[in-house]
Amino acid sequence: MNKFLREHNFPEDLKNMTYEDLELLTFEIRDFLVDSVSKTGGHLASNLGAVELTIALLKTFDAPKDKILWDVGHQTYVYKMLTGRMDGFKTLRQLDGMSGFPKVKESDYDVFDTGHSSTSISLGMGIAAARDLQGEDYNVVSVIGDGSMTGGIAFEALNNINNLESKMIIILNDNGMSISPNTGGLSSYLTKMRGTRKYINMKANIKKRMGRVPVIGDGMISGVHNAKESIKSAVIVEEGLFFEELGIKYFGPIDGHNIEELCETLEVAKSFDKPVIIHAMTEKGKGYSKAEANPSVFHGIGPFDPDTGKAIKKSSAPSYSKVFGDKLTAMADNNDKIVAISAAMIDGTGLEGFAKAHPDRMYDVGIAEGHAVAFASGMAKAGIKPYVAVYSTFLQRAYDQLVEDICLQNLPAVFCLDRAGIVGADGETHHGILDLSYLSSMPNMTIMAPKDGPELENMMNISEAMDGPCAIRYPRGSTPVINEEPVVYGKAEYLREGDEVVIWAIGSMVSHALEAADLLQAEGINAAVYNARFLKPIDDEAIRQSAKNAKLIMTIEDNVLSGGLGEAIDSIIINEGVKIVNLSWPDQFIEHGTQAQLYERYGLDSRSIAERIKKELER
Amino acid sequence: MNKFLREHNFPEDLKNMTYEDLELLTFEIRDFLVDSVSKTGGHLASNLGAVELTIALLKTFDAPKDKILWDVGHQTYVYKMLTGRMDGFKTLRQLDGMSGFPKVKESDYDVFDTGHSSTSISLGMGIAAARDLQGEDYNVVSVIGDGSMTGGIAFEALNNINNLESKMIIILNDNGMSISPNTGGLSSYLTKMRGTRKYINMKANIKKRMGRVPVIGDGMISGVHNAKESIKSAVIVEEGLFFEELGIKYFGPIDGHNIEELCETLEVAKSFDKPVIIHAMTEKGKGYSKAEANPSVFHGIGPFDPDTGKAIKKSSAPSYSKVFGDKLTAMADNNDKIVAISAAMIDGTGLEGFAKAHPDRMYDVGIAEGHAVAFASGMAKAGIKPYVAVYSTFLQRAYDQLVEDICLQNLPAVFCLDRAGIVGADGETHHGILDLSYLSSMPNMTIMAPKDGPELENMMNISEAMDGPCAIRYPRGSTPVINEEPVVYGKAEYLREGDEVVIWAIGSMVSHALEAADLLQAEGINAAVYNARFLKPIDDEAIRQSAKNAKLIMTIEDNVLSGGLGEAIDSIIINEGVKIVNLSWPDQFIEHGTQAQLYERYGLDSRSIAERIKKELER
Repeated sequence: MNKFLREHNFPEDLKNMTYEDLELLTFEIRDFLVDSVSKTGGHLASNLGAVELTIALLKTFDAPKDKILWDVGHQTYVYKMLTGRMDGFKTLRQLDGMSGFPKVKESDYDVFDTGHSSTSISLGMGIAAARDLQGEDYNVVSVIGDGSMTGGIAFEALNNINNLESKMIIILNDNGMSISPNTGGLSSYLTKMRGTRKYINMKANIKKRMGRVPVIGDGMISGVHNAKESIKSAVIVEEGLFFEELGIKYFGPIDGHNIEELCETLEVAKSFDKPVIIHAMTEKGKGYSKAEANPSVFHGIGPFDPDTGKAIKKSSAPSYSKVFGDKLTAMADNNDKIVAISAAMIDGTGLEGFAKAHPDRMYDVGIAEGHAVAFASGMAKAGIKPYVAVYSTFLQRAYDQLVEDICLQNLPAVFCLDRAGIVGADGETHHGILDLSYLSSMPNMTIMAPKDGPELENMMNISEAMDGPCAIRYPRGSTPVINEEPVVYGKAEYLREGDEVVIWAIGSMVSHALEAADLLQAEGINAAVYNARFLKPIDDEAIRQSAKNAKLIMTIEDNVLSGGLGEAIDSIIINEGVKIVNLSWPDQFIEHGTQAQLYERYGLDSRSIAERIKKELER
Repeated sequence: MNKFLREHNFPEDLKNMTYEDLELLTFEIRDFLVDSVSKTGGHLASNLGAVELTIALLKTFDAPKDKILWDVGHQTYVYKMLTGRMDGFKTLRQLDGMSGFPKVKESDYDVFDTGHSSTSISLGMGIAAARDLQGEDYNVVSVIGDGSMTGGIAFEALNNINNLESKMIIILNDNGMSISPNTGGLSSYLTKMRGTRKYINMKANIKKRMGRVPVIGDGMISGVHNAKESIKSAVIVEEGLFFEELGIKYFGPIDGHNIEELCETLEVAKSFDKPVIIHAMTEKGKGYSKAEANPSVFHGIGPFDPDTGKAIKKSSAPSYSKVFGDKLTAMADNNDKIVAISAAMIDGTGLEGFAKAHPDRMYDVGIAEGHAVAFASGMAKAGIKPYVAVYSTFLQRAYDQLVEDICLQNLPAVFCLDRAGIVGADGETHHGILDLSYLSSMPNMTIMAPKDGPELENMMNISEAMDGPCAIRYPRGSTPVINEEPVVYGKAEYLREGDEVVIWAIGSMVSHALEAADLLQAEGINAAVYNARFLKPIDDEAIRQSAKNAKLIMTIEDNVLSGGLGEAIDSIIINEGVKIVNLSWPDQFIEHGTQAQLYERYGLDSRSIAERIKKELER
């Protein structure tokens, strides 16, 4: 085992390996991946599908001089292994350990820190244009999945690419899936190509032509060149019309698990001076039967038993996602106007049950958050009550639709923002700590955040009765149960009495505030705790009232300061003369780590909150 | 003149008119449009191009039961004329007058309040899906220009449309332009179709078949039905493959200025139970020679002389757009790393001169703001200094790219936000009063706003030297010249000394603050004025210092409160014990009107500011 891998983990090590040895290497890589991810958790299925593609890219291109861009970036584990980062897998996705996404500070081989989909073509075009302007010479390769292709910005880039006339290679890594199986017109089109077309036998093509040129010496070079030239037209097939109409040379479909075929196609693509798209067919989960059978489950997974494929679960309270999904399903049982909309994240947002119970009211629009929101607008306009379930960080992609198509129209769509606040191991690109900020400046938007599971359910009841837009944001992880008190629109909850100190918290921070109050009580300090519940409309009256006799008001939120709860409270009681301290995430990108570790590091855990209050009181 | 128009300005009036009379009507409509817009200003060229299309839609469909959605919506003047709103043109785009965009509160015929591009297919799909779920029966028609088609969300919708299996009609109003001539792969593709394909002679097709069926009686109905059925396949041409591959039936290209051909095609489209796209060729500016020759100039225009086509200009100081454009051109003369990027708005953002002087460094990516920002990220990564010039309201469409692709990478791209603050006559959808809010929560972003022309130039010098991302926001309109003091990074400008009152203003509000201070001085109140210059990094030190001896601090910004300058200042001096009043736009959508009228109505003009300060001092 690891005959090759231990000694072949830099691109230059691959250059002289035979295809036979490279194939042996793929087995070792897959063993390592399954073994490693089974211990740490992480993204597995997409990485298993990208083994040969990664090898072919690193063998054919001269990284890091040539720029290899991975769309999204959760499929870069093999790339990390083969660019000298094998040891990092022990600390994968752990605090101060290796990231599960490309990270420039980790390696010169990583070009951008990525995590959101569909941008790699635009980014690559920018690099290619800059290269040309500066008269430089290197290759730019953007690797994008068929799922990411459905995001509008990918199309914006494809539409613009022939204006550039820049040399650039796009690899469409087509596994027929985003996180769930893909739907949509482009996907049907690609599937049709898959079905009707035999893989191009590049090898046979090249060998046939190579037979006519000298095998050794200078002649070889021009011979190879000529061979490439002569097969250019042969490999461009008519099925690529969709791309060809946009001015992009299309090669494919080719076998994305055949290293030789990949390398040969990449060599041909390199010889073009214009944008080229290579359509490579891969299988998500390839080589690990459990993942092949259930690629969605193994897309992103916690630690699991590699023999059985079963997750090593800690028993815990139901997740916010599950509480949301179950509640929405129950609501829809009684209200046939309710529909659910997802942007390729039915499982992640807890909608599997809804999709089964109400398949006719489950709309999965693909990775297309802007469209999801505008589509919800249309439905709400025509008398339906749409619930858009989406991760907080991904709703950023629909900012303009929220403003223009939802809030301006004042339509009763509901946005359920899962993974709001710090998310943990996925890190910088996935934390949902901007949503309170970007939502709070949108007129007509109601913004709620539950402190626990029952409150999420109550807020969903509120949302059902609303006739304007509304957002409910809740964190990743399991739901505490603090109490089961009814939620009143626009009103905060006075959770715990106190005297000199008043803590205002929202959402996940309410439990931290309560724990902090317990810690303080043990030291004789009685802190009141308010659960804000609504950032908008905010409970001005309760906030003013709470400031009347307080010495210190502290605000706590799982969001940045600007535009969040703290600033909103500040602006209400600024002339009350009470001392205020705002706790929030600082104005910087927050690294990966467990949620608990990050709360502690940034002073948002209950102990840090209690300490901070004591300090402020002493001042 | 106006033989028909005065008596035929509701859809039902069109139903029984002959095609010959309808053609006469088009002349009256165009006369009215040119005459009316020449007096009020407004959007002209796109409306001249949509006369026949609007007539055909209102004749064929049963609005408002059938839903007609106009993408963007500046091309709805004819629609407004023919849905009973002729009289509104006297007050077009004026305070409390008729809007230049669809407005639900104006008319039941308007389905959404729109203004941003590329969303009409998503919105229409939402309505169609809601209709089907509720078992209702009506038509949904989305009219979208070829320019809007380049926006990613339009593609997201097209990709998703065949999943719905809903009856819906998309009309691709192809005039080869967005505001400027279109570029890009889709455009080339459409142009190719235009060139190689004769218009389909629907009329001949139908007449030929109609000859075989009875002319009168019940038989006619099924006869028409049969005729429609039999020509369905005939009108679907192979050139529509781009759309057909996505699962959308394609009809076209047809003559968008032939009412009869339009009506007949629409009738056929109505009979399909699945999504249909009709490709109609139109000419922007049609029927008014000045606009035909210069459609970009007549896209949106102020009052002009209809005989000469010349604008009736008031002489004024150069606009911010011009100062920006001239400065960037001059900077690029000396720095070959500088490039400009525009999303189909070269003219509007003042980049015409740059495009002429440095054509190789001018990138127009089409209506595709997300791509524009990610493309800028790529260029910045590879050593180029990109300046993205964009209207504030449209940069909302690239929120996620700003966070993920620019700020997270900490790349030195510069965003020049024109039309920031209230814009005037374009109204709700075009005001740029959210940008300070959405930018301020983005880590690594520098945010500047100049008070006048020289300061804009100085801030551009600052931006050139920066090695991280930076945004400069400036308003619509002409540049005052207040002074020519150098700008220091992160430092505010102490503009005017005072004692008990301190005004903190940013950008366009600085001149209002100075005028207010003049008014107050006349009454014996000495107000200090600070020009914030930077919202981020904000000048904490100067803010704290200014609060030391003040009785009242007032903040003024051409933005909403949440996440803007006021809240940022509040959170800095919240524990200083000084009274603070924050002036900003309220948390609502702001109607159209002149900038001066809106400042006055919402208390942001100098007189209101002075009055407010007096009141606060008296309390």
